[in-house]
Amino acid sequence: MALIDLSRQVALGIDIGGTNTKFGLVNHRGEILAKGAMKTDIHETVEGFIDELYQNVQPLIEDHCADKLFEGIGVGAPNANYYTGTIEQAPNLNWKGIVPFAALMEEKFGKPCKMTNDANAAALGEMMYGAARGMKDFIMITLGTGVGSGIVCGGRLVYGHDGFAGELGHAIVKPGGRKHWSTGSEGSLEAYASATGIAITAKKMRAEFPESMLNEYAEEEINSKTVHECALKGDPTAIEVFRYTGQKLGEALANFVMFSSPEAILLFGGVIRAGDFILKPTKLHMERNLLPIFRNKVKLVFSELNEADAAILGASALVWEK
Amino acid sequence: MALIDLSRQVALGIDIGGTNTKFGLVNHRGEILAKGAMKTDIHETVEGFIDELYQNVQPLIEDHCADKLFEGIGVGAPNANYYTGTIEQAPNLNWKGIVPFAALMEEKFGKPCKMTNDANAAALGEMMYGAARGMKDFIMITLGTGVGSGIVCGGRLVYGHDGFAGELGHAIVKPGGRKHWSTGSEGSLEAYASATGIAITAKKMRAEFPESMLNEYAEEEINSKTVHECALKGDPTAIEVFRYTGQKLGEALANFVMFSSPEAILLFGGVIRAGDFILKPTKLHMERNLLPIFRNKVKLVFSELNEADAAILGASALVWEK
Repeated sequence: MALIDLSRQVALGIDIGGTNTKFGLVNHRGEILAKGAMKTDIHETVEGFIDELYQNVQPLIEDHCADKLFEGIGVGAPNANYYTGTIEQAPNLNWKGIVPFAALMEEKFGKPCKMTNDANAAALGEMMYGAARGMKDFIMITLGTGVGSGIVCGGRLVYGHDGFAGELGHAIVKPGGRKHWSTGSEGSLEAYASATGIAITAKKMRAEFPESMLNEYAEEEINSKTVHECALKGDPTAIEVFRYTGQKLGEALANFVMFSSPEAILLFGGVIRAGDFILKPTKLHMERNLLPIFRNKVKLVFSELNEADAAILGASALVWEK
Repeated sequence: MALIDLSRQVALGIDIGGTNTKFGLVNHRGEILAKGAMKTDIHETVEGFIDELYQNVQPLIEDHCADKLFEGIGVGAPNANYYTGTIEQAPNLNWKGIVPFAALMEEKFGKPCKMTNDANAAALGEMMYGAARGMKDFIMITLGTGVGSGIVCGGRLVYGHDGFAGELGHAIVKPGGRKHWSTGSEGSLEAYASATGIAITAKKMRAEFPESMLNEYAEEEINSKTVHECALKGDPTAIEVFRYTGQKLGEALANFVMFSSPEAILLFGGVIRAGDFILKPTKLHMERNLLPIFRNKVKLVFSELNEADAAILGASALVWEK
């Protein structure tokens, strides 16, 4: 029997977003040996997309690993189903219906392909290479344009009976509250705690407080970055935007804690650049809404993974997953 | 090597409540060979309780199984910690602090003892003997004096990092809502969907509607049973009590579904005797609050276990758990 040097095995991690797709070759230690990016949305068909992906990736594989060390492919994609390897009814992708993505990839690359949604992939990456190393119970919340989540219980990702578990961004935190721009639901976590939600909150609040620095920006310039800038300059309205956001997020996290009693909640994504402006009120309102038995136990921490690489690392972790 | 006939092995299942404790000898098929009950609250010390329990149980064991077939003990108890075998700060029990219950039981009975909270035990029982047979992902909600829950993901009970996962009764369903009589939290599921919560709702609503049949009862007679009787007679206020309760419960269930995407949600406990009066609005509001991807997928069903025996069966299932 020929021995295989496990430390030299390589996984291809792919992160498919609505606009861009990133990919990278990753080894067991979480080192990215090579990486690249391409457009997602210029491809009307999934076959065309996979053709270009193959042309981009193949040279990297030839340069960085012998074929026998190329272990497999992990993909993070919106609405990806872990059990079936399909992408189902993804609103942000051109490919409609149920797309047998993993099967098409296996055919093209000749390697096994596993997939899950982007937030689940990020949670796996965090467990394997980041702030959740050694943890068996944690929840990862991604705060970007939307709010995603990946849940790990007893050392395993929670996929649910159909592969779609962990849509915590769509949990209702305020019944009858703010209407979601896309789903139409009222009062979801995503409507408040996403970058999109923060911009909505900021626009409302600056209208109420004419003296706020936020009024120095044009409508389209209001986003979590500019609100953060104003907060840093001490603008009370901008600070209140994050406090309010943190309250809604903290209340939601308390409910999540009473579900799975995680050791930690990891926050990830563009919104966390606001640092303590969002972290402190989040922690306050999480603790306040917890039963005593859960208080002062749950670590609330920011992701340790480089944001640009986390999605690739997380997707590649699917390949190593038992 | 002597062969052991697995079908003849027996587990002792014990259900400890604040007032009464029930116990039974259960075989692999979920048949209760013998059972009994005793008072919990007359015992000031846990040692005294275990002494009486032993005196009650030992004759049953001698009658029904040889010692070598007595496999072990499973206990469902409030605030029981699966990992440590302790009962921690249980508000409804006389034994305060952290009680090393499993260790004391093992010393007395000379058999391994595992424990978890009562709702987790009920979920295990349902998975092994009841409506959740063959399911790997489901949530059990117990609607009694309080609201408890047991969550199964990927075929395993969710215990969380500290053993206390699954306190869904304390999830906040209406921020700033009804104050909980014991925890002080505002707007928890238990404050609305427990028998206690239903009585509060009924008392409020009958005051608003003087023509309601509910006004024919004395204050202390208002409970989920009498509300059900009035609903059966067509009293619109009584029907509205269950509709409102079902709305709050359904909204909460939608959030739980988006967490773990279960195949089914099992409802259990005294409150479900109200049948469709509570089930229909619960289902309506659950579906209404779900993302489309989860709609019309989750079975919402009543427990199949005999309520009087379910707790014993569930506790005994801990012994057979892998």
